[in-house]
Amino acid sequence: MRRPSDFVDERRLWDRHMAIAAFGATGRGGVDRQALTGDDGRARAALAGWAVGRGFRPIADEAGNLFVRRDGAEADAPAVLSGSHLDTQPAGGNFDGVYGVLAALETLEALADGGFEHRRPIEAAVWTNEEGCRFAPGCTGSLVFSGKHAIEELWNATSPDGAVLKDELERTLAMTPEAERRRGGIPLAGYIEAHIEQGPRLEAGGFAVGAVTGIQGGASFDVTVSGTDGHAGTVPLAERRDAFRSAHAIVDALYRDLADPTDTARFTIGRFRAWPGSPNTIPGKVVFTIDFRHPDATFYRGKVDAIADLCAAHAGPCDVDVTVRHDGDPVAFDEAVIGRVERIAAELRLPAIRMPSGASHDAAYMASLCPAGMVFVPCRGGISHNEDERASPEDLAAGCRVLADALYEMAMGWDGSPGTAPRRAATGRAGPRRDARPRSRGRARDAGAP
Amino acid sequence: MRRPSDFVDERRLWDRHMAIAAFGATGRGGVDRQALTGDDGRARAALAGWAVGRGFRPIADEAGNLFVRRDGAEADAPAVLSGSHLDTQPAGGNFDGVYGVLAALETLEALADGGFEHRRPIEAAVWTNEEGCRFAPGCTGSLVFSGKHAIEELWNATSPDGAVLKDELERTLAMTPEAERRRGGIPLAGYIEAHIEQGPRLEAGGFAVGAVTGIQGGASFDVTVSGTDGHAGTVPLAERRDAFRSAHAIVDALYRDLADPTDTARFTIGRFRAWPGSPNTIPGKVVFTIDFRHPDATFYRGKVDAIADLCAAHAGPCDVDVTVRHDGDPVAFDEAVIGRVERIAAELRLPAIRMPSGASHDAAYMASLCPAGMVFVPCRGGISHNEDERASPEDLAAGCRVLADALYEMAMGWDGSPGTAPRRAATGRAGPRRDARPRSRGRARDAGAP
Repeated sequence: MRRPSDFVDERRLWDRHMAIAAFGATGRGGVDRQALTGDDGRARAALAGWAVGRGFRPIADEAGNLFVRRDGAEADAPAVLSGSHLDTQPAGGNFDGVYGVLAALETLEALADGGFEHRRPIEAAVWTNEEGCRFAPGCTGSLVFSGKHAIEELWNATSPDGAVLKDELERTLAMTPEAERRRGGIPLAGYIEAHIEQGPRLEAGGFAVGAVTGIQGGASFDVTVSGTDGHAGTVPLAERRDAFRSAHAIVDALYRDLADPTDTARFTIGRFRAWPGSPNTIPGKVVFTIDFRHPDATFYRGKVDAIADLCAAHAGPCDVDVTVRHDGDPVAFDEAVIGRVERIAAELRLPAIRMPSGASHDAAYMASLCPAGMVFVPCRGGISHNEDERASPEDLAAGCRVLADALYEMAMGWDGSPGTAPRRAATGRAGPRRDARPRSRGRARDAGAP
Repeated sequence: MRRPSDFVDERRLWDRHMAIAAFGATGRGGVDRQALTGDDGRARAALAGWAVGRGFRPIADEAGNLFVRRDGAEADAPAVLSGSHLDTQPAGGNFDGVYGVLAALETLEALADGGFEHRRPIEAAVWTNEEGCRFAPGCTGSLVFSGKHAIEELWNATSPDGAVLKDELERTLAMTPEAERRRGGIPLAGYIEAHIEQGPRLEAGGFAVGAVTGIQGGASFDVTVSGTDGHAGTVPLAERRDAFRSAHAIVDALYRDLADPTDTARFTIGRFRAWPGSPNTIPGKVVFTIDFRHPDATFYRGKVDAIADLCAAHAGPCDVDVTVRHDGDPVAFDEAVIGRVERIAAELRLPAIRMPSGASHDAAYMASLCPAGMVFVPCRGGISHNEDERASPEDLAAGCRVLADALYEMAMGWDGSPGTAPRRAATGRAGPRRDARPRSRGRARDAGAP
């Protein structure tokens, strides 16, 4: 008998990527669709329109997360969720995030096209502000859904262009008026997020699918160095409070402290700017960011906890302020989900490997709520966060087939152990099963800071 | 008998500073009146209005330089010039540049109030874009006046905000319609520029006046480092073309190479920015500036000529492009002008010292055309290029008295040697003297690049 993956439509999936790519297109092959901008809102509106056109229910929550729901036979059963984000980097590509949203929508359409019904509801999710480059912290939507923050705690976040999150969120929510409103998270039976790898391993190894084992730890900091403006031609070094020179010394100390001969650690200064920014004025202020990641929890925690003191120790005559944008310990995905992805890939004759994720994803927060995992597909040269980010229609569809079958199995309550899934059942429906008790939203709230 | 300095009006001079300070006032005690902006134009218009109100002739040239002329008895005699600039740093003060313009205007008014006539014309000059922070190179106006560049060669200069110099120049010139138009430089008999010191020596030593001996060599570069955008969490160090990391290595090499245990050299990174500027994207581009100054011509030239190669040698996996914004060898002022400033200060009982200038000034270009010098006055704490830049009405007026007498002597043709100046002459006019032959504009054009 046929399975949901048989109804995944490669052309439809690709065309929807190209349709979303129009929102914020830069004209250089990439896109600037930062969170809660007009282009982000228009991309969401397009998605909601497609959902309504197929008879699915669009739902929005207080964090601006947009869900497309296909109801299950058991109306109140915990849902199976899949999704990612539509916001991008300022010079981003057309697949990072978008793929996970559209693969989830394609799964719903494949299920509808194939006439599959399922016990549990399945929802495709658009998480708000995953990238975090316009408003900190990133993963705003999954932070709120998973109970790590109330949205009210994030309302005052301000973008470099002076916009306030609360205003931009209201404006964006108003752009999908057809969406039902829902507050807070819902009980979940499972979560799988599809995503381009954003690294070179799958392509280099000839693999179609990565069964993601977890996400390395990642921290992000805002650093402000404050000195005194002065004339570049007159003030002697001994009397300078040169914010650039101090920032340089701090970065130098960070490069030394975070150096890693095994090339496992990832350390990036992505934003760095000196003020007032005149060639012949000693800068009185420098603002920069630190991004540090490592898969080992102990190593990660040791380095991250030392960063603020390290900055202070090398600030010289200037003052330094270090603010945590984000600090997430390494996350291990659910073994059953990982195994399910591997098994389905094998059944579909798609070469697959287990692999960790270098990038962080909304899945890291969902892993605190339910059995969670991810499906990676190749991207050309491993290039991402770049307008040259590319993925092929075939690779996107292949990953989506794995996702569709996996979500369907989870929505049917099959636990995925070898031999337990009645995958050739005539009706496509299995008898009711007891769900693993989902962790409630209330418990997630008590889980402490991310 | 009375001399021009007796008619310098401290209150008028101060009030005019405060009037100009309104154009581009930031509300934090300083000003943002960058070159050829609307505020720059409005400040020029105010000055032209004051000139017309006193019967002086406003004149504008093709570089936007604005002159206020008081004619001399000999209509075609080479002029005595004095001035500075009205443009400021983006977070600048109310005295840098403005003082030199207003002290020159105050001299004309003092001469008029005292009924002094003079052989040679005296002009107060506003030089266009001295600061160079909006359009490179700086000293646009004096570069053109002194024949180092034709204005047409600078028309395409573009500001960080995307404005083009030619357009901004036309708009600015249209704001002083009362000004006669003149093309090119004019023969000069002498030039003296009044300026705040922008350093701490006068204040610390209790001096009222600095007789400036020269200007140290100064060079400014734009450096662009080009790499590849990438995901901060995935790309291994070995595969990165991280423009920030390469820029850091270049700056580190520059700090080492330009280190000076005597604290004589001045090395500043005033502008530095990473693109696209997202916390979790490896920057594909960094742009920064280098400002280097030193009073010793040989040392200066050796270091400046090595900078481009030094940048290239430390760019790692990235590409680097180094462009010279400005490169000016050390300038020595005319001994007769220096001595005249010292002598007049002594006659006025103002404590004075000889001192070099750490900052560059339009006077550096005038020194290629005629005997030139500068008068420095104290500024509080030596602070400049800063909204906290301050100077007292008394100090400004004291420097202006020296300037007024010096300009008058030069306009009378007195050569300033001890014993030769009939300073107590009953009429305030001396018999005609042969001017030292002024270097012609044609010769200056042949003087080569600055």
